Amino acid sequence: MNRRQLVEIIRQKKSCLCVGLDTDPARIPKALLKNPDPVFEFNKQIIDSTKEHCVAYKINTAFYEASGSKGWESMAKTVAYIPSTHFSIADAKRGDIGNTSSLYARAFFETLNVDAVTVAPYMGEDSVKPFLEYKDKWTILLGLTSNSGAKDFELQRNGGEYLYERVLSTSSSWGTPENLMFVIGATQASWFERIRQLTPDHFYLVPGVGAQGGSLQDTMGKAMNADIGLLINVSRSIIYASGEDNFAVGAGQAASIYRSEMMKFI
Amino acid sequence: MNRRQLVEIIRQKKSCLCVGLDTDPARIPKALLKNPDPVFEFNKQIIDSTKEHCVAYKINTAFYEASGSKGWESMAKTVAYIPSTHFSIADAKRGDIGNTSSLYARAFFETLNVDAVTVAPYMGEDSVKPFLEYKDKWTILLGLTSNSGAKDFELQRNGGEYLYERVLSTSSSWGTPENLMFVIGATQASWFERIRQLTPDHFYLVPGVGAQGGSLQDTMGKAMNADIGLLINVSRSIIYASGEDNFAVGAGQAASIYRSEMMKFI
Repeated sequence: MNRRQLVEIIRQKKSCLCVGLDTDPARIPKALLKNPDPVFEFNKQIIDSTKEHCVAYKINTAFYEASGSKGWESMAKTVAYIPSTHFSIADAKRGDIGNTSSLYARAFFETLNVDAVTVAPYMGEDSVKPFLEYKDKWTILLGLTSNSGAKDFELQRNGGEYLYERVLSTSSSWGTPENLMFVIGATQASWFERIRQLTPDHFYLVPGVGAQGGSLQDTMGKAMNADIGLLINVSRSIIYASGEDNFAVGAGQAASIYRSEMMKFI
Repeated sequence: MNRRQLVEIIRQKKSCLCVGLDTDPARIPKALLKNPDPVFEFNKQIIDSTKEHCVAYKINTAFYEASGSKGWESMAKTVAYIPSTHFSIADAKRGDIGNTSSLYARAFFETLNVDAVTVAPYMGEDSVKPFLEYKDKWTILLGLTSNSGAKDFELQRNGGEYLYERVLSTSSSWGTPENLMFVIGATQASWFERIRQLTPDHFYLVPGVGAQGGSLQDTMGKAMNADIGLLINVSRSIIYASGEDNFAVGAGQAASIYRSEMMKFI
């Protein structure tokens, strides 16, 4: 999916909601456990009940890898089930030396065939570039993350600038706002203004709303750009909104409430 | 495997060689392609022919993920085939917010059951700690990597210190030399003295010898400590030493030559 298409579906739906399919096998409702692939069945029902309200789905690979190759199968089936009208993200935080990153790019953009993959910046340009070489695919580089550990390195000053600022400004020249986004945590609202100065045109994937405590209103109010420029991810607060047999209905309702809030801004 | 056991096998064998199973399906000798799992069959024969000369095997997950769930199966079978006398490493460069990193730790230390996993430091303490909580398992944090992109962030000064220095000194307090190692590229020999000042007792996993041009002699001469403190990884120069049907013999010979060089130092 290219940028024009992404902006179009966001404006059409008046939603920049991304539903995070962080599906923990231990939290699947009992009724699904007799299914041959409970994780996929859970995701399928979540997708059916939320797709009206969101524009994207994000799969965090950790939740699937914990089950080994079976988990990768559930992940592949889930990606295949995401409607082509929706933007698909593998939240994998990969990155390696150039020739190895090319294989990660193949894993996510060809084999799994998602629209976007999250990438870690620590190893620099040759670890990121192979992802940027795919047409109409997106690299989402970690910028300023939502977790407490962001203070250890990302928010350390590097001479005059913070490390996360250097990551944003340096990597901006590796790609364009057409193929590069950044992960910016919703819990980092006090930095949004500075972040938009550095990367006015880029899209941000924003985790941290919901269970992690970030504010949807602050994020929309302070970090939107002319093309909206945001995909706001909510995982646990949607997929586990209702724990039991009516989990899909609960997820749909939760997604609808997030979308209503977004409508006020879009 | 704990540190005492690791040091013991290194001294016994007079080798700190780690063979990197970066097995590219496109480079498997034709004779193996009729096998139901050519990648595993290749790895099996490489392990058989090199285990006498090395103390560790490192699997780079990118090469397996490029084939999706089938690749994860080949990876799991390969890990199960690595003799328990050898140290096993998943070179996965993972890292995420705390609760998600716990799932990666489970994926690699329980489901796949390797001794060690490589982890990216960018997201800070809560992204690394869950890996350190496993007894007799190892976290190998990216320090100063072997690739050209190391200059983009790792070798940028952060006030008085380089980012990689801050990563080494900060993360040293998260774990101990009994459960934490660092990735230090063999191509970075000019920094070894400084790196040993910062982390005198830690083991380093050293990629970059062979195809990437790092020197085994420089690394052994400048970066060993009292417990040797090094696992030197060689991938392509061993597993593709001979391209065709005698690939296993070629790999064994190449591994034996690397070990002979190591014997001069151990």
